[in-house]
Amino acid sequence: MSKGVTPKTENYAKWYTDVITKAELADYGPVKGTMIIRPYGYKIWENIKDTFDREFKKTGHVNAYFPLFIPKSFLNKEAEHVDGFAKECAIVTHSRLKQGEDNTLIPDPDSKLEEEIIVRPTSETVIWSMYKKWIKSHRDLPILINQWANVVRWEMRTRLFLRTSEFLWQEGHTAHATKEEAIEETLKILNIYQMVVEQYMGIPLSVGKKSENEKFAGAVETYTIEAMMSDKKALQAGTSHYLGENFSKAFDVKFQDKNNSEKYVNATSWGVSTRLIGALIMVHGDDKGLRLPPNIAPIQIVIVPIYKSVEDLKEIHEYLKSTLNDLEINDNSYYFDDREKISPGYKFNEWEMKGVPIRIEIGMRDCKNNELTIARRDNGKKMNINIDGASKFIINLLEEIQISLFNQAFEFKETNTHVVNDFNEFKSIISKGGFIKCGWDGKTETELKIKRETNATIRCIPLNQKKDKNLKCIYTQNPAKHEVIFAKAY
Amino acid sequence: MSKGVTPKTENYAKWYTDVITKAELADYGPVKGTMIIRPYGYKIWENIKDTFDREFKKTGHVNAYFPLFIPKSFLNKEAEHVDGFAKECAIVTHSRLKQGEDNTLIPDPDSKLEEEIIVRPTSETVIWSMYKKWIKSHRDLPILINQWANVVRWEMRTRLFLRTSEFLWQEGHTAHATKEEAIEETLKILNIYQMVVEQYMGIPLSVGKKSENEKFAGAVETYTIEAMMSDKKALQAGTSHYLGENFSKAFDVKFQDKNNSEKYVNATSWGVSTRLIGALIMVHGDDKGLRLPPNIAPIQIVIVPIYKSVEDLKEIHEYLKSTLNDLEINDNSYYFDDREKISPGYKFNEWEMKGVPIRIEIGMRDCKNNELTIARRDNGKKMNINIDGASKFIINLLEEIQISLFNQAFEFKETNTHVVNDFNEFKSIISKGGFIKCGWDGKTETELKIKRETNATIRCIPLNQKKDKNLKCIYTQNPAKHEVIFAKAY
Repeated sequence: MSKGVTPKTENYAKWYTDVITKAELADYGPVKGTMIIRPYGYKIWENIKDTFDREFKKTGHVNAYFPLFIPKSFLNKEAEHVDGFAKECAIVTHSRLKQGEDNTLIPDPDSKLEEEIIVRPTSETVIWSMYKKWIKSHRDLPILINQWANVVRWEMRTRLFLRTSEFLWQEGHTAHATKEEAIEETLKILNIYQMVVEQYMGIPLSVGKKSENEKFAGAVETYTIEAMMSDKKALQAGTSHYLGENFSKAFDVKFQDKNNSEKYVNATSWGVSTRLIGALIMVHGDDKGLRLPPNIAPIQIVIVPIYKSVEDLKEIHEYLKSTLNDLEINDNSYYFDDREKISPGYKFNEWEMKGVPIRIEIGMRDCKNNELTIARRDNGKKMNINIDGASKFIINLLEEIQISLFNQAFEFKETNTHVVNDFNEFKSIISKGGFIKCGWDGKTETELKIKRETNATIRCIPLNQKKDKNLKCIYTQNPAKHEVIFAKAY
Repeated sequence: MSKGVTPKTENYAKWYTDVITKAELADYGPVKGTMIIRPYGYKIWENIKDTFDREFKKTGHVNAYFPLFIPKSFLNKEAEHVDGFAKECAIVTHSRLKQGEDNTLIPDPDSKLEEEIIVRPTSETVIWSMYKKWIKSHRDLPILINQWANVVRWEMRTRLFLRTSEFLWQEGHTAHATKEEAIEETLKILNIYQMVVEQYMGIPLSVGKKSENEKFAGAVETYTIEAMMSDKKALQAGTSHYLGENFSKAFDVKFQDKNNSEKYVNATSWGVSTRLIGALIMVHGDDKGLRLPPNIAPIQIVIVPIYKSVEDLKEIHEYLKSTLNDLEINDNSYYFDDREKISPGYKFNEWEMKGVPIRIEIGMRDCKNNELTIARRDNGKKMNINIDGASKFIINLLEEIQISLFNQAFEFKETNTHVVNDFNEFKSIISKGGFIKCGWDGKTETELKIKRETNATIRCIPLNQKKDKNLKCIYTQNPAKHEVIFAKAY
């Protein structure tokens, strides 16, 4: 760990990359646009993933695995879908290398494929080609399949976790007998997304529907969870799509219903990705590095012993034994940092950079006084507590930190969300950053004009809106169709 | 579930595919050589994966994720490695599609890549290019990284789970300061592999070293676990490689040791894949379908109620409540199959096909008699037991079935392993199938001659061999260097 990160206020983008690099979350891969997720970053992903996976399974979903490779012809099948994805993708054209003239390897011309293969940008097409085979009757429905996988969308400007050619995600693809059931599924998943991101990742969200222009190509309706980063920009953290019969028609997937009449299947798809780690960094991070919510932190508590001799260290170990034992029983993760020849100060900085929620500092004096020194990462406060009941105190404090991080982010988001009626005010606020709540006449034309002038997009049409009847469109001043949230976005 | 599978004795390959299809483990993907792992098959993989993952983590390993894409130039770096892998692989040459003349999509010539990209057949090269960046001092060692990922090796003749262009696996890649430590790691992993495959998957193994000719390209030494399928052929179920300094030299990865002298890093790599599911099927499966060891079965117990009215079904539910509650507390997985309009007989066949270890049949008479009928999938035996203490009985029976499946496979393997001294006998046995234990003079030339004549290869040089001093090579009759196991293999 060399010196700290670039301050946020100096250069936000550089701050972001510095945190990732210095906390050892990720690194750039040798092929442009690719990323390595390092063990500490991957453990965060595993914790996020396990939480989602548990929730998906609780609600009857099962995992499966579909191929990385998609025939090029599939991308022609669902027209909207092509527009959305087919453009920037990895195309496999050969299946063998051979020695070239100058002794380097070249693609063997004899191995040229008859039909090019696309590396999946998303799996709707390959999955629906299989559902065609598996679905015959209403007895085969619903299918509630999820997949954890890597996908590829070619990117020229890499941004770790936010924009990389390859990323990890889950993609759910469900098939239902009725429209109602499919819509219910779409919203059920939206709820799970919101619950996990808010309660585990501590990220407050705006939840709603996408506008026609912003929705997923091929979806009838797209629902989204939107988060506010600490630079006041929005980040789309997950989407859940009601696909209607778009894919079942494209792949001709029909079933016999209970009355023996033939119907097209209704569909949903939904996904969250490693992008969530980008949100986590930008929502909670500060100029000392990461701040991790206890519920997804790889290490919840780090213990830094301050000692001179091997005997001292032994005494500290002995002194903490019962406390650490309690934490283990409660499934809390801790790391006892007794690495040699590294100063306590250096260790403090390192674990602050890595965002560990609680640091315990413990020296010989603490042992004598039956005390512990505890430092909170969420607000930097230090306190001395008695060793008796320490484990209980720590367990409660972890819960407090979880809530505190959410509340800080919530307050920030509220403070920077503005209800606006006037377009000049809109422009002035957008240029400084923040979410704007305002009326919109529901026309794509209006939305695009606003985007052209301000770079802001409709992040969502919030659910359950209590719209004022007299609300006017921020741009045209015509009656508003919805109250919406505008912001610049990642 | 239509009728059963092709009998093993009639056509083993067809039996294998039938079991996979009818138990809904996997299906063929639209691109030649690709496979879909269906939910039931994927759950088996998740159980295997979770078991390995737990053992890797217990021994200090961490997970990470490296890119799918490898620069073509990397494959030139480690000469042996190229020979092993570079030949059949997926080559990405373009990054964008566009509308062609006849309105179909074609690779946009403007998007042709300067350097072609290879879809990883294995990740040694990309990982060692990063280790070059991460390793400076002995303090950075050891690195004990594992990755769960998909890899691609072009295949023309698909065989579900055994030979597909894309498959799922884990690949461990560790870096160490000394040769001794790296060798210790190689063997530690070999032990984990053996433990999980034998104790969880119930597959008895022959464990040993590969011959020069059979080892992984780029390894100094390859260790292997070899299983005997029920057609008496061998299947390599996992390998652990001591790589020496081959990759650290190819990627120039040196570190400062404690005495400040510069040294090359020592390495290991090791992997198991979805191929293990192929072994599971072929070791335990019979003409009724799968037989799954309880320790990795997605469903350990299936309950098939036999009833006429809704009231009867309700009574059965009530009757089993406390038993099922006990099973839940003990973390046993069960499925109560009360699907309507499907006959009990049909359900019996279906769950036998899917290999569920225990079936509980329960009718109104059982309720009256305070009994349960239990059917074991491992040996087909049925028994009546009292409802009191049923959960305890079932939990014990699951353990018994776990051991019984291992023992059946162990006995089969022992019966079909022959100690042979005469090459004519060797040929006669190999043509019928089985493992042969015999002497080998240690020469690749001899090994290749035997392979040419019989199609048998050295599966391994067993560890801890107590070789007879007078043992002769089965082929040359010269003094044997090792006792080895020969077999035909998948």
